[in-house]
Amino acid sequence: MSDTVAMPEKAVVQFDCRGTAVGKMRNELAIEMVKPFKEEFELATDEGKFHGGDASAPPPLAMFVGALTGCIMTQIRAFAKRLGVSLNDLKVETRIQWNWQAVDRVYETAPKSFEIDVLIDSPDPDDKVAELIETAKKGCFIEQTLGVGNTINHRMKTADGWRDV
Amino acid sequence: MSDTVAMPEKAVVQFDCRGTAVGKMRNELAIEMVKPFKEEFELATDEGKFHGGDASAPPPLAMFVGALTGCIMTQIRAFAKRLGVSLNDLKVETRIQWNWQAVDRVYETAPKSFEIDVLIDSPDPDDKVAELIETAKKGCFIEQTLGVGNTINHRMKTADGWRDV
Repeated sequence: MSDTVAMPEKAVVQFDCRGTAVGKMRNELAIEMVKPFKEEFELATDEGKFHGGDASAPPPLAMFVGALTGCIMTQIRAFAKRLGVSLNDLKVETRIQWNWQAVDRVYETAPKSFEIDVLIDSPDPDDKVAELIETAKKGCFIEQTLGVGNTINHRMKTADGWRDV
Repeated sequence: MSDTVAMPEKAVVQFDCRGTAVGKMRNELAIEMVKPFKEEFELATDEGKFHGGDASAPPPLAMFVGALTGCIMTQIRAFAKRLGVSLNDLKVETRIQWNWQAVDRVYETAPKSFEIDVLIDSPDPDDKVAELIETAKKGCFIEQTLGVGNTINHRMKTADGWRDV
């Protein structure tokens, strides 16, 4: 969200996604911003041929690293105007690593490292640019989400109704 | 990753993203899977017109909820074969909420709730389907990442080299 939006002091932002499995590994994703505004988007994920998919769309992890990178970049540009920092150019380079371990017939994963390098071309002092990055981190929905341990509640649909999993 | 991949017992999975800011709020994202295989993807984010963008691509949060949904769906399908669960149909409905709060000239955000509803049409017993979902949660890179507080290391490029932010 940028500074052209009239937002109240506090708000809830909600995104929903309805995913439908099609083909071998493709997921068609109907995404809706529900609050505070209504917007709809169509996306899809797939896996490459050597992962058993048809490579018809990017894999979920490509979308994930792209979402994180796009989020912090959006925040930097939105907040630059508010903090009076001039941006001639902005590039961000993100690297994410996960550990992957085979366990019986399946596998388990865990995050290993997150690195974000910010390249800003600005006539303003380094300290002002650093303040802009600090402020953007706090405004970046995805960064703030990754910084805390989140509880994800799962349910499965059964003949008797929803069951917690 | 599905079961067609020959993976060692342990591995590091790495995704990089190089984002370039263009136009008003658009970010062009060159994404590379670096380990354990090389693959490249091109994505982009933008914001809607009332957020100061040109709506030329989905916003980062749409990609984020899509990545999470696609990740758990991919894991459910990959692991169903390994656990011997038949899937006639798979749908997943995800809802994510964040709190948004104005602070001085900018704003801050925090995650509020994550809900994932799984709709599986299977002839197998509910307990086997529940086990599949539990196993998929542990194999889902993004779920496992969201479940822990992650440290994200930022650097900014200066005339004197990299500076931690």
